[in-house]
Formats: sequence, C-alpha cells, structure tokens
Amino acid sequence: MKVVLLSGGVGGARFARGLYAALGPDELTIVGNVGDDLEILGLSVSPDLDSILYTLGGMSDDERGWGRADETWNALSAVADWGGEDWFRIGDLDLGLHLVRTQALRRGARLSEVTADVVARAGLRLRLLPATDDPLQTHVVAPAGTFAFQEWFVARRHADEVDEVVFEGASEARSAPGVLESLSEADAIIVAPSNPFVSIGPIVAVREIRDAIARRTVRSVAVSPLIGGEAVKGPADRMLSRMAGGTSPAHVAACYEGLIDALVVDDADAPAEAPVELVVTDTLMRDANAARRLAQVVLEACG
Amino acid sequence: MKVVLLSGGVGGARFARGLYAALGPDELTIVGNVGDDLEILGLSVSPDLDSILYTLGGMSDDERGWGRADETWNALSAVADWGGEDWFRIGDLDLGLHLVRTQALRRGARLSEVTADVVARAGLRLRLLPATDDPLQTHVVAPAGTFAFQEWFVARRHADEVDEVVFEGASEARSAPGVLESLSEADAIIVAPSNPFVSIGPIVAVREIRDAIARRTVRSVAVSPLIGGEAVKGPADRMLSRMAGGTSPAHVAACYEGLIDALVVDDADAPAEAPVELVVTDTLMRDANAARRLAQVVLEACG
Repeated sequence: MKVVLLSGGVGGARFARGLYAALGPDELTIVGNVGDDLEILGLSVSPDLDSILYTLGGMSDDERGWGRADETWNALSAVADWGGEDWFRIGDLDLGLHLVRTQALRRGARLSEVTADVVARAGLRLRLLPATDDPLQTHVVAPAGTFAFQEWFVARRHADEVDEVVFEGASEARSAPGVLESLSEADAIIVAPSNPFVSIGPIVAVREIRDAIARRTVRSVAVSPLIGGEAVKGPADRMLSRMAGGTSPAHVAACYEGLIDALVVDDADAPAEAPVELVVTDTLMRDANAARRLAQVVLEACG
Repeated sequence: MKVVLLSGGVGGARFARGLYAALGPDELTIVGNVGDDLEILGLSVSPDLDSILYTLGGMSDDERGWGRADETWNALSAVADWGGEDWFRIGDLDLGLHLVRTQALRRGARLSEVTADVVARAGLRLRLLPATDDPLQTHVVAPAGTFAFQEWFVARRHADEVDEVVFEGASEARSAPGVLESLSEADAIIVAPSNPFVSIGPIVAVREIRDAIARRTVRSVAVSPLIGGEAVKGPADRMLSRMAGGTSPAHVAACYEGLIDALVVDDADAPAEAPVELVVTDTLMRDANAARRLAQVVLEACG
C-alpha cells in the first residue's frame, strides 16, 4: 500500500515513525515542511526534515522532543563565547548534518537530493521529500510585527498571538521532484497530527501540491493535532482559536477544506460534528507502539 | 619593550605563550602564518592563528599538541556518518570558532578584523595579525606531485619529501593592516621556533613584510626549531636536509638570510659556526615555564 504523508516536525515525525513501522519497506513517502527552514551561522538548517530523519532513523532524543539523542553542545557554547548567535539550539551531532547539507547545497545540489542521500545513509526504506526545493519561508503576522517562523517560534518562544501566516515564495514554488509522482501513485494520502497553519500550511501552499491533493482519486485522512481541544505541545490550539474560531474537530477540518475526506480525532473530542467523516480513537502517542497503533487506525480509515 | 613575533603553529604558539608572559600587556604583536589556512566543510579554518589564540588564551590541549582542551568530536563523527569529509580533524569546540569566523568573513569582514575580535574576547592584551588578509596558500612540491599544505601535512601525513615550497598569491598579497606599523614601531623582531619553510616562509613571502624586516633598524633574533639537528615535532629537519643541505645552525640561519642578526640554538647544537651571531641555551619548551625562560634569553639577545 503506497502512502503519502504530509508532515511537519516533532508530532508529525512521531506519527511518521508509527506509520513507517505499520507499512512495508518502500511504501511510505513523506512530504515534509520546509517553511521553517533557516540559515543560521551560515548553515542551511531544515528542522522538520531533520526531526523526521532523526526520529525514523532511531537517532532522536524523544525525551527532549527534538534533536539527537546523546547530543552535546560544545560548538554552540564556543559560538557564544566568540560572539556568535546562539539563540537557535544546534547540538554538535546535529551540526554534522547541517555542515554536510550546506556544503552540498553550495555545490549546487537540491535539498531533495541531499535529503534522499541522508535518508539512504540512515538505512531508511522510504522517500522523504521536501515540499519544494525552491525558497518558501513561513512568516507569522502578530500584533507586534511580522516574524520569520523560527524567530517567532524559538527566539520569541511563540508567545505572540498570530493573526495570519504567510508563505513567502509559495506562489513561485514548484513541488520538489517526486512529490507529484508520489501523490499520483499513492493509494492513500495522510496528513500527520501537525500544526495545520505552520506545519501543513506551508506544504499545501505550494499550488501544485494543493491542486494534486484536491484532485485526488484516493482517500485523504488527517489526524487532528488536538486532544480535548488542546495541543499536546506548541501553539496549535491558540492558533486555531484565534484564526479558525475554535478548537473543535469541525474547526480542525476547516483548515483542510477540500483536502481531506476524514479526520481522526481523540476520544476526548467526541462526539462531534464535522463536514468530513470523523474517526474517533486514542490519538496520544505515548510511545512508538502507541504511534504505530494510531497509524493502523488511520490506515484502516484510508481503506 | 615592543616586540613583533613571526610565528607558525604549535611550536611558535608555545614560544609565543612564553614571550607573552615575559612581556608586559600590549607589548606583543604576533604576525601569524596563514599559508596553512583552508576551507573545509564550507568553513574558513586558520590553524596557525587558532593555535596561537588557544595556547595563549589557556584553551589549548597541550598534550595532544593542537586544538582545544576538553574537546569532543561529535560533529565530525556525524559529518562522517552523513558522507562528508572528515580527514581534517575539527573538534566541536574548535568548530564554534570556525562558524563565527566564516560567517563574519562572508559578511565582508577581513581575517585581521575577525582575529582581533576573538583575541579581545579571549581577554588577551596583544595583537595577533595574519600576515595578510589576501589569499596566500602554501603548496609543497614533492616527487608525487604538488599538494596544498594541509593535504600534504594532514591527509598525506607529511610523508612526501619536499623539493620546493611555493606560496600561491604571495606576489599580490599585501600585508594585513597593522603589520607594517607594528614592525616600524618594534624595539625587536623575533622569529619563533617554527618551520622556516612552511611556517615562517609564507609570512616573509609577503614582499612588504620581507622588505620591512630587511630594512629594520632594530635587532632581529630567530629561535632554531631544531634540537641536536632534529625537529621536536614535524618535518622541519627533513626539509632542511633536503632543501637547505643540512640541519646545522648555519643551515637554519641561511633560511633567514638578511632577516636576522642572531640565531638562538640549543646546547645540543653547539659549538657551531654561522653567518649570524649564535646564542646557545636550552631551547626545549617542556612546559610554560621553560617557554618563558627561553623567551627571556631571546629578549636579552635582542637587547
């Protein structure tokens, strides 16, 4: 069964790990968000793609929730001592990937090529595709001003309420090689339990991807990132309240209008009404087994 | 007493630490070799300037002989895992400096400016100047071919005999800001116990520097890097044998023809004849105290 998963960072990566375990090898294509990507310390960093790589590759620090296990922080500590920027936390192991990627990009490789290479080196039998190889940057519009995603999320600790999310470059961005083919060959499309505005939004802001999903001939199922109307982590609930008018399954489904046939919600959010089919289950991914069980339920909902 | 020291990497850095301790604050200017500088993993690395910074800043790993104390190697290990180049050993703490420097250079700063900034941040009361801010690259000509310095020194473990050393860019290179002023204001010029060909050679390959030293009105004293005709570390003895015809004090002095008035040699190399005044002492820098004592002898020879 060939599946395309749209995924953002940490929550998406955990679901992706469950889905990868539930599927056979070479069945999963993940289209990852790159709107969070940034250049920091002269390095090209792709936090969401890396969260997926590390989580599925068994390298992630699940307790911290991001980055690599057994990480050290000496380079960043030296950066700070020498007067460099240290607001974006990059560990030493993580840095190795950014160095290799940045050098490959400078030599003319595409992000999709570099990503395919590291996925293969991690021994993963899946496709991990950036939504686009073109510049696409998520900015949040808040009362205090407009901020690049990581500036808002990390430096300002996503404290600002968000009035609007804009995707710079989206109108010119083409989908990365492989994305449209994967969507056309897929037996199902799944939207991970990621933030609809800043994780999935930048993916479907690429016109070709949005159109391909809107024209789908297979089922598309999203997993709500909320449990009992609250985000497990991050600002998804506050953003839904302010920008979608509420945190019910109907409000989540509205974010994906025309893009999904069903929404998987937690027991705590049922019963509920929504313009799409609702599937109710335990969506909290306590561990890898729970994520795999959730993935099974989602796959059944695709069937 | 204002002193200008010409210095290469490790041996020079150890002598520089002794000299810095022997002088008062703001009396020492070090003109460092940049012929070894390289771009690796997209980073601008200046090994000799960094050895001096780390050694004088109390951050060096004196046992290993290069790099920082309490160093870890996680970034480079990840680089290797992701298929990047790991032949040039860069530790995590060391990496922090390269990241900050590389970013500053990309933004248009000169190497001399970046270096002055990190020296100040290390709390050092001295000037550390690259010989030049311009491109100047040491290449060694060996029977097997011509190699960039670090390729020969690190990747090929300086196993090739060297027939000639060439300094690409030297004829166009201007001395870095401050070098000529420091030389003209100096009460003495000292050449550290560094490799004459590949550490001091690239400095005096800058025409303005060579001319300024040749026209000096103060004493210039070099310290031989050999003890009993042998290098404490590295290929200086083999290079002297092959390119200067021997390893006696006269052969070392010949490397600095017109540039020095006296040569400090080890007890093991005396008695000897040379075209410059010879000063005989114990030159082995067993520890920081020995380096300071040697520096005192050299300063007296400048008197």
